[in-house]
Amino acid sequence: MIVSETKIRVRYAETDKMGIAYHANYFTWFEVARVNMLDELGASYRDLEAEGFLLPVLDCRAKFLRSAFFDDRLVVKTVMKDPPLARIELAYEVMRGEELICTGNTAHGFITQEGEISRPPPRFMTLIRQRFGKQD
Amino acid sequence: MIVSETKIRVRYAETDKMGIAYHANYFTWFEVARVNMLDELGASYRDLEAEGFLLPVLDCRAKFLRSAFFDDRLVVKTVMKDPPLARIELAYEVMRGEELICTGNTAHGFITQEGEISRPPPRFMTLIRQRFGKQD
Amino acid sequence: MIVSETKIRVRYAETDKMGIAYHANYFTWFEVARVNMLDELGASYRDLEAEGFLLPVLDCRAKFLRSAFFDDRLVVKTVMKDPPLARIELAYEVMRGEELICTGNTAHGFITQEGEISRPPPRFMTLIRQRFGKQD
Amino acid sequence: MIVSETKIRVRYAETDKMGIAYHANYFTWFEVARVNMLDELGASYRDLEAEGFLLPVLDCRAKFLRSAFFDDRLVVKTVMKDPPLARIELAYEVMRGEELICTGNTAHGFITQEGEISRPPPRFMTLIRQRFGKQD
Repeated sequence: MIVSETKIRVRYAETDKMGIAYHANYFTWFEVARVNMLDELGASYRDLEAEGFLLPVLDCRAKFLRSAFFDDRLVVKTVMKDPPLARIELAYEVMRGEELICTGNTAHGFITQEGEISRPPPRFMTLIRQRFGKQD
Repeated sequence: MIVSETKIRVRYAETDKMGIAYHANYFTWFEVARVNMLDELGASYRDLEAEGFLLPVLDCRAKFLRSAFFDDRLVVKTVMKDPPLARIELAYEVMRGEELICTGNTAHGFITQEGEISRPPPRFMTLIRQRFGKQD
Repeated sequence: MIVSETKIRVRYAETDKMGIAYHANYFTWFEVARVNMLDELGASYRDLEAEGFLLPVLDCRAKFLRSAFFDDRLVVKTVMKDPPLARIELAYEVMRGEELICTGNTAHGFITQEGEISRPPPRFMTLIRQRFGKQD
Repeated sequence: MIVSETKIRVRYAETDKMGIAYHANYFTWFEVARVNMLDELGASYRDLEAEGFLLPVLDCRAKFLRSAFFDDRLVVKTVMKDPPLARIELAYEVMRGEELICTGNTAHGFITQEGEISRPPPRFMTLIRQRFGKQD
């Protein structure tokens, strides 16, 4: 299991007239958290793209338990439970201090810049397996 | 079953560097579709809020089958299968011509402006029941 | 002078906790209006990009006279006063009925997909000159 | 003169199909920078709103000298040249390392939650004057 934590501070632009963070923005925060997790793995998303791989979202979900407000300092915990085969599956928990305010999931597939479905790049899988404690 | 169709044209702002519409924007399109469905029901969201009711998103999901591109003309089909009890459950299909490119769901709860969970307002339920062909 | 009118309906996602449309979204509305003006000229932005030209924003400004609210129906009037030389200069007025709520400007330059500054593509200039009533 | 520096990392959601950060997002970054400057002054925007004051944008502008890309680490320098009278005027410079990529301005007015134009709140002016080295 790979776990990563990312700090988010709620922007005014992200609020809506209900006075809370608009729900779609949580998916952007998940993206920020995911990019940070890849950085911590040593496989930055920027580099993955430079190597010709894209990682589009295939499926995404969020459940909202409490509202987030302007200027809230949140932590997004990102969890990869299993090494990816064809898909990368990630789970997220958005915390405000000790309070769990949102849970979510995203699934991603690797595609090449020509739009072909691809296996994860070997360097990426090596890094993942190292973190999961398996040899290549 | 209540069904509504809403046209969306993909904005440049909604694309990302992959050249496709960024996934979180589909949830904004679902909102546009939902607001339109409420209009067609005769219960505009603007009026619901003026009457003191908010309708936050409790849960949302989207599955992406194909990409949407800048300037694509899409149709979002919104479906309410059952009259709401405590929650409003909506399903969405995003079409580009005959192609299904995304399916999604949202669930909503009514709350009052004081933040209390509420039953749907009576006028709203009357309109819903009329469309479902039931008497009040 | 070329003038175009584009309808905008304010999305919930575009509001902020002040209860009004967040200022940065007006620039997205200007984009929608600009894309519509190009369509009316017969030079769709999608086609311009397909022909290898990009039209990045070099400068943009907005002055806010009144607030826009959720579900407001607005009209963005876009004006091109002069045929473009190196830059395209556009002016915008955002109207809610008879009320002027915002004025703005954007300036754009043509660049090629390789990132080189370019003159406007000839087909584009022909269309523009026809609308300005000048011969090629 | 009051100067503040704020770090921004470009999100994938903020890019567009040109492969660069969409221009409207710079105004959101200016907001993040402004909120940070107010924090550093000891007058957080959250507190200002809690005290009943809103600070809408009256005018905003940005000039783009270079593009910003996904994952770029930027610094937004925010400058308040003069203590505000009726309006707060701020200038921004967006830097990528030593490169200046964007300059901008925003102007703001204080209004009360009832929508009346207001002088800046006294506590806020005291903090500003202290930083400008003047006595109350």
